Amino acid sequence: MGKLKRLAILGSTGSIGRSTLDIIRRYPDRFRVTAIAAGKNRELFVRQAEEFRPEVISLSDEWDINEIKKGLSYTPKACWGDDGLLEVAACDGADMVVSALVGASGLMPTLAAIRAGRDIALANKEVLVMAGGLVMEEARKNRVNLLPVDSEHSAIFQSIAGHRKGDIKRLILTASGGPFLNLPMEKLPAITPQEALNHPRWKMGKKVTIDSATLMNKGLEVIEARWLFDMSPEKIFVHIHPESVVHSMVEYVDGSIVAQLGPTDMKGPISYALSYPDERLDCGIESLNLCKMGKLTFMEPDEKRFPALRLAYQAINAGGFMPAVLNAADEVAVEAFLERKIKFTNITEIVKTVMGKYQNQKSKTQNLKLNQILEADRWAREMAKEIVL
Amino acid sequence: MGKLKRLAILGSTGSIGRSTLDIIRRYPDRFRVTAIAAGKNRELFVRQAEEFRPEVISLSDEWDINEIKKGLSYTPKACWGDDGLLEVAACDGADMVVSALVGASGLMPTLAAIRAGRDIALANKEVLVMAGGLVMEEARKNRVNLLPVDSEHSAIFQSIAGHRKGDIKRLILTASGGPFLNLPMEKLPAITPQEALNHPRWKMGKKVTIDSATLMNKGLEVIEARWLFDMSPEKIFVHIHPESVVHSMVEYVDGSIVAQLGPTDMKGPISYALSYPDERLDCGIESLNLCKMGKLTFMEPDEKRFPALRLAYQAINAGGFMPAVLNAADEVAVEAFLERKIKFTNITEIVKTVMGKYQNQKSKTQNLKLNQILEADRWAREMAKEIVL
Repeated sequence: MGKLKRLAILGSTGSIGRSTLDIIRRYPDRFRVTAIAAGKNRELFVRQAEEFRPEVISLSDEWDINEIKKGLSYTPKACWGDDGLLEVAACDGADMVVSALVGASGLMPTLAAIRAGRDIALANKEVLVMAGGLVMEEARKNRVNLLPVDSEHSAIFQSIAGHRKGDIKRLILTASGGPFLNLPMEKLPAITPQEALNHPRWKMGKKVTIDSATLMNKGLEVIEARWLFDMSPEKIFVHIHPESVVHSMVEYVDGSIVAQLGPTDMKGPISYALSYPDERLDCGIESLNLCKMGKLTFMEPDEKRFPALRLAYQAINAGGFMPAVLNAADEVAVEAFLERKIKFTNITEIVKTVMGKYQNQKSKTQNLKLNQILEADRWAREMAKEIVL
Repeated sequence: MGKLKRLAILGSTGSIGRSTLDIIRRYPDRFRVTAIAAGKNRELFVRQAEEFRPEVISLSDEWDINEIKKGLSYTPKACWGDDGLLEVAACDGADMVVSALVGASGLMPTLAAIRAGRDIALANKEVLVMAGGLVMEEARKNRVNLLPVDSEHSAIFQSIAGHRKGDIKRLILTASGGPFLNLPMEKLPAITPQEALNHPRWKMGKKVTIDSATLMNKGLEVIEARWLFDMSPEKIFVHIHPESVVHSMVEYVDGSIVAQLGPTDMKGPISYALSYPDERLDCGIESLNLCKMGKLTFMEPDEKRFPALRLAYQAINAGGFMPAVLNAADEVAVEAFLERKIKFTNITEIVKTVMGKYQNQKSKTQNLKLNQILEADRWAREMAKEIVL
């Protein structure tokens, strides 16, 4: 059996964080929780702290965390805000950090965890979208394993294991196509947040669910794959696969394709990342019954319906800070859509406009400075907010 | 680039042998042919000898080989018959032996190659069906890599690479279902050899094509997989998959399935075995276009239509010499069908009857003696021939 792994969890009350704790609960001999950080969900956070008794706990707000600390039956180190996230990320004794914050907020803590030499289970794709070159370089320098928690990247990771990197011809990311794959185009503008949050296959957080409906999520994943697997963008393809059974594929130079399939349950990729490189974990996920499903279908993505995908390729090819700009503009636009300030189709329009206005730096992608990335992120957010108003 | 590999080919004029030489022709820097053996196809054999100039050549017939030798532009060592096969199998200087004879005749030469310490590219599934325990034991003792050339076992091999054997929950072999998957049952007895030789997906030799139509081929592959991957029979499943795109799958304990897909071209699995563990070979096989195919379907095998599959599981579970008996009876029955002596449905009936008549030995499967295996093989052939008459 694998040796005990000590985990710090950034984003313990979110969808990935809760699933992570479900898995840990099943395998108390394999895992210990040393630190947890969350945002504002005090009630759940208290229950998590009492159950797993992490040594370090952190919430967004100083007052919240102090209130909680008074009521706990033990005395952890309590932190808050951005510094609290950094404390949890680099806390003593953790072997792995689960990076499951939403959006750009995860970048600094994830970098801190890497610099502290922790392996990373990476659910926060924006970390690589914004600063892929920098993050991968730090991971190499600190000899840190970066384990993807996205189902697509976990699939690619599992399909590359045991094969030669030089033999890879292309990566094929699959996309469900979201809830609006077959909706008449003219109805797209009128889509409500409710409708967009109703994903046909996956239960996920709000941001990623909306991004799945626009296919921006797939675009971000293409950028993520570019860094995670050191693969040039023209070798990364996307297939629409509404059944979401094949999570992604790798084609080799001899025409052989290795693919990973599984039920649409995030516990699969999470448990793979947590367990790696030791024994896999049986989390009670039911076996896929392909015979019962009947059929699996695949189609090319429709670029008219889903312009986000092309924007993502444009951003990688532009390089520099453009992926960070795309990401920041999208975060602002998705939030505005959820608040009913803009239409569904405005999301990608805003991203496109912000990208068009950005004066990209010519510096090599690999050598981006963190402060410049954060500056580009800030600039794009301001610009997107201006457009929303 | 991988270092030069020297190959001996058992069955150079058959379907697998010819494809092997096609691949070698593309990669003269990676491979050299040191020896070839074939049966009666003199004309093709001469051309192969002149082109690849192997040091040892062998045909079934002494007179044939001597005639050929006189006309060659160089002077190889010429052998014939069963001894000739053994010479080729264990010839000096080969790194790998391609075992591509048809049926039981490949067993002794393949064992000789293993005992001479050669890696094996195994296309001759009867070797493992008849003597799996013995062959695997010899392979272990002689530290020989046994690389499957069947598309299904190559798929499993590629889907296990890089993963933990202990994590495997089950193997899922796919079967096209052959040309008669949807034919009304009452029409099965009247099937002609011509119809049965017309496989919808794969171009293969005659024996394996008929076995694909009865699904006996899948039964033999279940037995082969049992030995090759040291997997108990209840962990080996079969799915009918008419498109033959997913070549086979491995499910792990966490519900994750790793699968290998590819075009229906035997050069895929052959080249993988030849190249392993060095760089894969680009043999000009066209990329699979899943979007163009539209859909992949899967269904449970129909045991009424395909009784051969159940017979194979019965044979493994019975253990001892029963798989050798099944195999021998099937070889005789398929030949009789091709000669129009029996009906299509008689093939599996004869196998069943012969198995029913056999007094199995109780000795542990792993410790079967070669001479006893050959004795069971002879007995089953006699019995099957009696029934055919």
